[in-house]
Amino acid sequence: MKKVSIVEVGPRDGLQNESQNLSVEARFKFIEALAAAGVSRIEAGAFVSSKWVPQMSGSDELCKKIKAAQAQNKLLKNLVWSCLVPNEKGMDLAIQAGVKEIAIFASASESFSKKNINCSIAESLERYSHVIAMAKKNKIRVRAYLSMCFGCPFEGKISESVVASLVKKLIAMGSYEVSIGDTIGIANPAQVRRLVAKLIKAVGAKRLAMHFHDTRGTALANILASLDLGVRTFDSSLGGLGGCPYAPSATGNVATEDVVFMLHGMGYETGIDLGKLVSLNKIIEAAVAHELPSRVGKAGLPKLLPV
Amino acid sequence: MKKVSIVEVGPRDGLQNESQNLSVEARFKFIEALAAAGVSRIEAGAFVSSKWVPQMSGSDELCKKIKAAQAQNKLLKNLVWSCLVPNEKGMDLAIQAGVKEIAIFASASESFSKKNINCSIAESLERYSHVIAMAKKNKIRVRAYLSMCFGCPFEGKISESVVASLVKKLIAMGSYEVSIGDTIGIANPAQVRRLVAKLIKAVGAKRLAMHFHDTRGTALANILASLDLGVRTFDSSLGGLGGCPYAPSATGNVATEDVVFMLHGMGYETGIDLGKLVSLNKIIEAAVAHELPSRVGKAGLPKLLPV
Repeated sequence: MKKVSIVEVGPRDGLQNESQNLSVEARFKFIEALAAAGVSRIEAGAFVSSKWVPQMSGSDELCKKIKAAQAQNKLLKNLVWSCLVPNEKGMDLAIQAGVKEIAIFASASESFSKKNINCSIAESLERYSHVIAMAKKNKIRVRAYLSMCFGCPFEGKISESVVASLVKKLIAMGSYEVSIGDTIGIANPAQVRRLVAKLIKAVGAKRLAMHFHDTRGTALANILASLDLGVRTFDSSLGGLGGCPYAPSATGNVATEDVVFMLHGMGYETGIDLGKLVSLNKIIEAAVAHELPSRVGKAGLPKLLPV
Repeated sequence: MKKVSIVEVGPRDGLQNESQNLSVEARFKFIEALAAAGVSRIEAGAFVSSKWVPQMSGSDELCKKIKAAQAQNKLLKNLVWSCLVPNEKGMDLAIQAGVKEIAIFASASESFSKKNINCSIAESLERYSHVIAMAKKNKIRVRAYLSMCFGCPFEGKISESVVASLVKKLIAMGSYEVSIGDTIGIANPAQVRRLVAKLIKAVGAKRLAMHFHDTRGTALANILASLDLGVRTFDSSLGGLGGCPYAPSATGNVATEDVVFMLHGMGYETGIDLGKLVSLNKIIEAAVAHELPSRVGKAGLPKLLPV
């Protein structure tokens, strides 16, 4: 199977970790440009507190813009897009905004769960069971993120069995896919091979997405290790948007351009026009007012060779 | 086999592509610090024209310093170091300086050979046959670089059979190892698997080193692909020193810290103390007066996890 699905998380996960707040209109244009470059799955916004996450404010308005564009516009018609939802209140807003897919976020680390979403892992699953019930009732698909699957800044090692058991639970609860996060960018390909083999055994490769951070340069190697085992869905952000909240000036999300460059070189199809994608890099750099870490964004596409 | 050999090319290949000229003393201190961090193979200097490559001037003096230190100093005693030699004139100087290992550099691209060393590939091999004869006579080991093995900025695709045939020739001529260069950072793991399998068939994995540039973020993935096939020697430069002469602000050599971080995580032994290595990053950044691209250098080592 040579098709790979890229889930572009720049407009949410990326922008949420930027200090510049982009307007709803700028975020919509970003999503539109991504779709024009052939990106078919985008995490668009989040129904979270504007007080804590001002970067995502106006997500309801953003959803309306996307829906209106989808109704008129061939370009966006087949775009699958989602919004992050932390709780039932957020789910209410997502339903009102007419989203067709939401993302929930749990953690494989107790300490991080408490620091990030202020409850234990068990409590978060309980909370999400209500969110998922609401989603089911409204025919909304649910994607789950699981963070800190390869290690945690507060706990160190994370048990692979705990990760596998949580992934199983999230699928059993009704998520169609779980995105396995290397949230601090410490995974290595040997570890990826061990964990992914275990997860495929637990839920099958089709239920998995891998979400690697390039903080220590290993993201593409980890994607290669996952690909070899049969995973075909990867999260990434345009330009590597988002940075790493745990190490200022370090890289967070792996850059979509870098992932697509490697995949196309290996003969995988993503549906993405890499030239168009790379041309967005400079526009987003201007919007967030700093250089983005994408290697391909910096170096450009090679001359005289197919991409 | 869990041992991997790292050939640190920062003091030559790295510094040669920097605009700041470091003094012989600064370069010696750099080599000494690398050895103190457990680096056991270092490309130290080059016997090339100071007019064209001022960064390498005083390589004879540098060799003397290293030899003197090796005679007195436990730290440097077992260090294997080499100097680049382009021709018989350079070889004369290398012999006078008492080097025990030299490196020669050929290209798999006719166009690049002409642009870089001003002769055809065949002419360069003829020239190196004389250099190697002088080396043999003086019991000096010869390492060969082969550049543009995965693609060329002037020719595009490079034939894998041509690469394999050149590697065979360089070994037959008397090189103990050929370093296979992805000089413009365009290789992908599928291509690496194809070419490396061919090269192992031609000369065996023990005769190969891989020299990847991280220009488009794929270096660690390409190292992983090579490792899986049995290659156990990799070139890298501290901090990713050197940049990419074909794309200003883009990355050249893969950073030693990033390679070692991945290898140690996977259970490979390099003999290198990663903490000490990372601490050199800031010192070298100050010396070359710009930020280095190493991801691990920027992010630092993870807390609470083994490295």
